[in-house]
Amino acid sequence: MARTASLSGFPEWLPEERLVELHVLDTLRRVFELHGFSSIETRAVETVGQLLRKGEIDKEVYGLSRLQEDDGNASADTGNAASTGKSDPHALALHFDLTVPFARYVVENAGYLAFPFRRYQIQKVWRGERPQEGRAREFTQADIDIVGDGDLPFRYDVEIALVIAEALSALPIPAFLLRINNRKLAEGFYNGIGLTDTAGVLRSIDKLEKIGPAKVAELLKSELGATDEQAQSALKLASIRTEDTSFVEQVRALGVSNELSEEGLTELEQVIAAAVQRAPGKVVADLSIARGLDYYTGTVVETVLVGHEQLGSICSGGRYDALASKGNRKFPGVGLSIGVTRLVSRILSQDLAKATRSVPTAVLVALTNDDSWGAAQDVAAALRGRGIATEVAAKAEKFGKQIKFADRRGIPFVWFTDDDGKHQVKDIRTGEQVDADPATWAPATEDLHVRVLKA
Amino acid sequence: MARTASLSGFPEWLPEERLVELHVLDTLRRVFELHGFSSIETRAVETVGQLLRKGEIDKEVYGLSRLQEDDGNASADTGNAASTGKSDPHALALHFDLTVPFARYVVENAGYLAFPFRRYQIQKVWRGERPQEGRAREFTQADIDIVGDGDLPFRYDVEIALVIAEALSALPIPAFLLRINNRKLAEGFYNGIGLTDTAGVLRSIDKLEKIGPAKVAELLKSELGATDEQAQSALKLASIRTEDTSFVEQVRALGVSNELSEEGLTELEQVIAAAVQRAPGKVVADLSIARGLDYYTGTVVETVLVGHEQLGSICSGGRYDALASKGNRKFPGVGLSIGVTRLVSRILSQDLAKATRSVPTAVLVALTNDDSWGAAQDVAAALRGRGIATEVAAKAEKFGKQIKFADRRGIPFVWFTDDDGKHQVKDIRTGEQVDADPATWAPATEDLHVRVLKA
Repeated sequence: MARTASLSGFPEWLPEERLVELHVLDTLRRVFELHGFSSIETRAVETVGQLLRKGEIDKEVYGLSRLQEDDGNASADTGNAASTGKSDPHALALHFDLTVPFARYVVENAGYLAFPFRRYQIQKVWRGERPQEGRAREFTQADIDIVGDGDLPFRYDVEIALVIAEALSALPIPAFLLRINNRKLAEGFYNGIGLTDTAGVLRSIDKLEKIGPAKVAELLKSELGATDEQAQSALKLASIRTEDTSFVEQVRALGVSNELSEEGLTELEQVIAAAVQRAPGKVVADLSIARGLDYYTGTVVETVLVGHEQLGSICSGGRYDALASKGNRKFPGVGLSIGVTRLVSRILSQDLAKATRSVPTAVLVALTNDDSWGAAQDVAAALRGRGIATEVAAKAEKFGKQIKFADRRGIPFVWFTDDDGKHQVKDIRTGEQVDADPATWAPATEDLHVRVLKA
Repeated sequence: MARTASLSGFPEWLPEERLVELHVLDTLRRVFELHGFSSIETRAVETVGQLLRKGEIDKEVYGLSRLQEDDGNASADTGNAASTGKSDPHALALHFDLTVPFARYVVENAGYLAFPFRRYQIQKVWRGERPQEGRAREFTQADIDIVGDGDLPFRYDVEIALVIAEALSALPIPAFLLRINNRKLAEGFYNGIGLTDTAGVLRSIDKLEKIGPAKVAELLKSELGATDEQAQSALKLASIRTEDTSFVEQVRALGVSNELSEEGLTELEQVIAAAVQRAPGKVVADLSIARGLDYYTGTVVETVLVGHEQLGSICSGGRYDALASKGNRKFPGVGLSIGVTRLVSRILSQDLAKATRSVPTAVLVALTNDDSWGAAQDVAAALRGRGIATEVAAKAEKFGKQIKFADRRGIPFVWFTDDDGKHQVKDIRTGEQVDADPATWAPATEDLHVRVLKA
């Protein structure tokens, strides 16, 4: 793109770029709804207490305060994060993802939802991070989750991976790869070799791609007190990566086994087996995947665009058994989140896809003279009535000027009506002009709507 | 609705309510695109300086601050409204409407846009007001605007009123009435009777519905120094309301005329004349309409739902000739904004419309036994391939239980495959069960997608 955002980290698209984004959003919505996911939106605002419940990413949260708030008048109701300080759990802040708000929504509305509840949610989120390519301060996520009441069959872990593979396959993006692991497998294995600070080990393993195995081994030893042998075992597990279920044998060959690791192994095997059959080439078992956030309890997923690995994960998530609860009632879930802005930024910056035209309009109705505006509106109404997007010129300029106007706007057809009421329509790309009836004429199917095509 | 928002002023919908909102949004988008409006979104965040340029509604703005911001490290880049204070024009805040951000977008991207530029924009906005029915702190607006480079033919004022009338007519809402006035007419008239503080008079007239004519006359006299005769003249003008162009004669009969008022009269006449013909019964000339914001320069519009007048305006806007400029270059515009959340809240609270079912899913594929999940996925894929939203059961429970599950979720059809591979589909509303082929079976058209029907 030629332009840079006027506010760093807050990208905005030109109309023809927005058409690409809309295509991505419409495609995701279509696939999600075909799989029975309901749309919901949650408010952009949560209480600080709700957002920081997990503790981890408070650095990135934008607090809210009413600019005209009277000093000393801050209250939970007005939610002034500025005057009440970050320690006030009732202060308001912008959500930084869609999972935490969704968990709150499920708990609040449990009495009105039919479980297992499947929803998709496509909204903006905000993080006050330092912006860089692929990382904005305001960006759109598209999430799907399935949440159960009390329990949630493991099968949904398999299903949700397949749905996401189908959704991503429908987008105008390069090949992608879902890299899947299982926390139970990892935790069981670490425990089996005597490393009990699972969260700590996962945090170190998470740095594998950034700093390499030697430095991760150092970390495991210096920060977690691992022996050299323990560190090497953990790294061996993390180095396993297979396109089929052969990872099972490779893990077993490491000679560490317990109930938890076996459970994780079986789960991951089910996901990969289904993916080999139903989404071949799109999924790998990758035992280096850790996911920093500590609410995941089973399946964990990250996704790379092949050839764009440095962009980071374009779709992440997993199984969480304890994110939402209401007294003794637990709502386990599994979900994945697509980084729409990250994907769209990449599509646009590398011209991976393009809209067939820059406006929705298919036809401009030209004005013969200034009094013909009403008649032109009748023509336009007839075309719109049959789903053909149509504009009417505002001024009866020379036809050449009106055609130039259509050309400049990217409108492919111009409609003319002469003084005798005879209609003609011109394809201004080819110059071809034919007689036409507003009640029956239609453009070729490929010209009816804007389409977005992969380069 | 049985529920109240868990955070006052921040409404959230249940999945079946969201279907109504989605229907409203989809309908608006369809109509806007049929008329050639391009979609854009602007970032949710503006600088305080940009937002308060017009000065008027600063009370309602939510400022942003990073919760973990180091003290003394606040800068324009990090946009900390809290630590730099509301007087810092570089601090960040949430937008309170879509017009001001759009004006900024046009100026910033003028080199990339084809003028007159027509856009629609459907986004959330935030205002820290005290919540009440019809007034939320977070709500969705749907705006259309047409903006010119240097000049913008008046005809677009006529067109935009007609587009909005068509869009509102397509929604599942009661009858509505666009009440249209013209600032030039009002300003010219007030000047003609010797009242030169136009903004002041408009502010008083704006209170007509709330406090009545007697108190408005008092205001005009006490605050603007109007004589009794001037106040009565102003009120006479404001009392004119006609469904056709007869307001022109009524205004002329008041005996006040000058160039500006005549210009306004002619403009308003054109809007009303076109509306009488193309949107009969949906538009009135109402000379009491003032619109508080001072950037309007010609046509002004408010819209009431008939029978729901106390809800306030559901669609407002008008002509602004000087909102956006870049050096000497001016970008005059005309636009209208629909209060989507206000409309949807009313539709839901009064059951004005309802979704035909609560989930997108048309078919649940039941499991005969636990091993049939793969075969069930094949059936589901075949149905989805033909646009039929389908879920697969997660557990091979008794058929009765699986049917109950579909019923609870609001899914109309359940698909069974017996051990011999024979397929049947049951309409669980009627109990009718028929043989079916995954490659050809389809539900009745009215069951294919969720529809939203007016009560």
